[in-house]
Amino acid sequence: MSKGKVLLSVSGFNPQRWHELLAARREVALRPEIAADPSIEYAVVWKQPPGILTNLPNLKAIFSIGAGVDHILADTTVPDVPIVRVVDPNLSKHMTEYVVWRVMDHHRFGQMYRAQQKRKIWREPVQRTAGDTSVGVMGLGNLGRDAARALLGLGFLVNGWSRSERTVEGVATFAGEAGLRAFLNQTDILVVLLPLTAATRGIVDYSLLKELRRRNGLGGAVLINAGRGRLQKDDDILKALEDGTLKEASLDVFEVEPLPKTSPLWTHPRCS
Amino acid sequence: MSKGKVLLSVSGFNPQRWHELLAARREVALRPEIAADPSIEYAVVWKQPPGILTNLPNLKAIFSIGAGVDHILADTTVPDVPIVRVVDPNLSKHMTEYVVWRVMDHHRFGQMYRAQQKRKIWREPVQRTAGDTSVGVMGLGNLGRDAARALLGLGFLVNGWSRSERTVEGVATFAGEAGLRAFLNQTDILVVLLPLTAATRGIVDYSLLKELRRRNGLGGAVLINAGRGRLQKDDDILKALEDGTLKEASLDVFEVEPLPKTSPLWTHPRCS
Repeated sequence: MSKGKVLLSVSGFNPQRWHELLAARREVALRPEIAADPSIEYAVVWKQPPGILTNLPNLKAIFSIGAGVDHILADTTVPDVPIVRVVDPNLSKHMTEYVVWRVMDHHRFGQMYRAQQKRKIWREPVQRTAGDTSVGVMGLGNLGRDAARALLGLGFLVNGWSRSERTVEGVATFAGEAGLRAFLNQTDILVVLLPLTAATRGIVDYSLLKELRRRNGLGGAVLINAGRGRLQKDDDILKALEDGTLKEASLDVFEVEPLPKTSPLWTHPRCS
Repeated sequence: MSKGKVLLSVSGFNPQRWHELLAARREVALRPEIAADPSIEYAVVWKQPPGILTNLPNLKAIFSIGAGVDHILADTTVPDVPIVRVVDPNLSKHMTEYVVWRVMDHHRFGQMYRAQQKRKIWREPVQRTAGDTSVGVMGLGNLGRDAARALLGLGFLVNGWSRSERTVEGVATFAGEAGLRAFLNQTDILVVLLPLTAATRGIVDYSLLKELRRRNGLGGAVLINAGRGRLQKDDDILKALEDGTLKEASLDVFEVEPLPKTSPLWTHPRCS
C-alpha cells in the first residue's frame, strides 16, 4: 500500500526545511495545480492560496506550521477536516529572536547610527540601559511569554497585557479593556504578539499608539508588530510616525501582504 | 574648609550623567585651560587629552570611568598618583547591550533586510536559530563573561578564548596561543573584548580573521570589536571584507579615533 501525498503550501517564507523533513517520509506535492489530486491526504500550510484545499477528495487533516490557525480559516472554502497546530519550538525561538533584534535596534539607536555613518558623523548620544526602558508585550501566549522572558534576561523592564488575566514571573501584567491604558502609559517600546480574533482585529490603531509613553530624550514611542498584519491599521501607523506619536516602527507584518509597492511604509526612514 | 574640585575630562561619549553625579558633591572643572588649577584634587577621565593632568599640583588620584586604564597611561606625562578603575555596573551592561545588538543584527540579516527594503523586495531567507550559530568571545574578563552569559541566555552556542585558562559555565573555553586556532575554527561570529596589552596589540589581523569558520549559506564570518581600536588592524579588516573572508563587521572602535573621514570603513556597505 503506497502512502498518500502531502501538499506543502507556504507563502511568505522559504519552506526548504519543511520540504526536506516531509520528503524524507512521503511524496510532497508543491504546486497549486495539483490541488484536486486524490492522492493528497495531508496538507501542511502557511497562508495557503484561497481555494487550494477545497477540492481535495481524500484530505484527512491540515497542519498549520506557523503561529495560530486564522491564516487557514481566512479561506471559507476549507473543508471540514481536523486542523492541527504544529507546535514548533523553533517558531517561538525565531519569533523571540526577531523581537530581541528589533527591541535592541531601537533601544541602541540603530536607525540614528546608520544615518550618522552615511554622513560620516562621529557622535554618541546618551544611552539608557535596558533597566531604564520598559517594553510592553501585548499577548501573553507561548510566543509573548517567551519574548518577555528573553527581554527580562537582557535587563529590560517588561510589562504584559492580555485579554484575560495572566501571570508571568518578573512581568508587570495588565488585563482586558480596563487594564489597557495603564499598560500603554508605562510602555516605551510596544511589542505586539496577539492572536488575531474578532476582538483584536485593528486593535493597533492611532488611539492606542497615542497612549504609549513618550519620554524626554527618546523622541517618541516605538511599535514592533511581530503578530498579525490585521491587528494593525497601516494608515494609523503612518500617521503616528508622521506626527511624532511614534518615533519608529518595526513591522514584520502588514494589513495586505506582500506590502503593496505603493505603500509609503516601504520607504519611510523610521519604519523597518 | 572647602573641598577641592574634580576635573572631568571625557572624549568619545557624552558625560552628562557623570557630570550630574559629580556636581552633586563637588565643584566640577570641565575645560582643558584649567589644567594647572591648584584647586583640582581629583580627575575623572576617559581618554583625556595628552598633558591635561601633567601640571596639577594638588592632584590626589585619577579615576578611569571606562574599561581599562590604558587610555590614561597612553599619556606618558601623567603624574605618579593612584589610578582608580571605577567598576561601573552600567559599563558592562552597556557593553553587553552593544554586543547583543550587533550579534542579533548580523544573525538576523539586518544589513540584507535594509538593502531589500530600499529596493522594495519582499523575501525571507532561510533563518538559522541562535542554537545553530556559534559566537566566540575573545577576552573573558568582566565584560567578556557578561556578554557570554547574555548570548547563552539567547540560545547561542558560545565559545570563549583568553590568554590564560578561564572557566565560564556553559561556555566552551580555549586558552593561549595553543588554543586560538581551534577557537576561531569553531566561531561564526567573533566578539572581541580583550584588554589592550603588548601581547594583544594588533591581534585582530588578516591571518586571525582567515581562521574563522565560513559556513555554507552564511556567506562568511562576522567580526564585532567592542574592545580597543588598537587590538585590530583596520586595513586587514577592510581586505577581509573585500575578499569575502569577512561577511560583515561591526566596529565600535578603530586604530585612530575619530575614524578619519578618508577611511573606506565609513562607507563600506558591510561595515557598521
